Amino acid sequence: MGLHVVLYQPEIPANTGNIARTCVGTNTTLHLIRPLGFSTEDKMLKRAGCDYWPDVKINYYDSLDELFTTYSQGEFYFIETFGTKNYSEFDYTDEQKDHFFIFGRETTGIPREIIEQHKDRCFRIPQTDKIRSLNLSNTAAIIIYEAIRQQGFKGLS
Amino acid sequence: MGLHVVLYQPEIPANTGNIARTCVGTNTTLHLIRPLGFSTEDKMLKRAGCDYWPDVKINYYDSLDELFTTYSQGEFYFIETFGTKNYSEFDYTDEQKDHFFIFGRETTGIPREIIEQHKDRCFRIPQTDKIRSLNLSNTAAIIIYEAIRQQGFKGLS
Repeated sequence: MGLHVVLYQPEIPANTGNIARTCVGTNTTLHLIRPLGFSTEDKMLKRAGCDYWPDVKINYYDSLDELFTTYSQGEFYFIETFGTKNYSEFDYTDEQKDHFFIFGRETTGIPREIIEQHKDRCFRIPQTDKIRSLNLSNTAAIIIYEAIRQQGFKGLS
Repeated sequence: MGLHVVLYQPEIPANTGNIARTCVGTNTTLHLIRPLGFSTEDKMLKRAGCDYWPDVKINYYDSLDELFTTYSQGEFYFIETFGTKNYSEFDYTDEQKDHFFIFGRETTGIPREIIEQHKDRCFRIPQTDKIRSLNLSNTAAIIIYEAIRQQGFKGLS
């Protein structure tokens, strides 16, 4: 049980580094779906992660299916710019469950065929039409903290 | 009236670029207190801002006092790791007011003497003690979206 961030084939090491830092700061587990667009020895990854990289609870997979199989009881949420539901309107308060927030590649998002299978779990962060999307690490931070807020910031100070 | 982000002497161009992108995506005005640790022609700033830089509503000042004088009716909030109030427990729903979220330098934060004068407006994002702080652009995104959420995501889709 807990909060989980899943990055599907992330491309930009600074984003994954910043998200890793947020995960350490919120007791969130990070799951990375290969292939990654960078080495886990990448300097930008380490710099963005501020040397917290060794403290991240992190798991690697070769496909999203491998993750789904591993956590068959998980609650999965897909965060996409073309999602139809507002991320803040979902109830994340059941702490007995594992909540997985899945984010796609910076350039191409989550594969369309996966989205098609999970349309009712496809969430969006409302924004103006002046930008294509928010930065990936910002998107993850917003979602994680909405879940944490709903759960009453337990374990944080 | 509206939402405002104030960056006090920011040092890392990618952070300001990502925050500028979030501002464009949320109709938030950006205010930068000089000196900046980078040129506004910086490549990392432009890359992080994803070419949205020309769309940012942005103002420059030589001191925080200049900002306070310009917006004497503003509501000012200071976001610091040693803040004592939870950012989400404040009410940002009065849309007739100008809400200013002030963030300090990446390395040294907001000057201590300014914090001392505004202790009751010094907010914190709860986190574990395993990190010194969240990334600055993530911090800004979390706060902006909490205010937007409270205001019902008006004007966004």
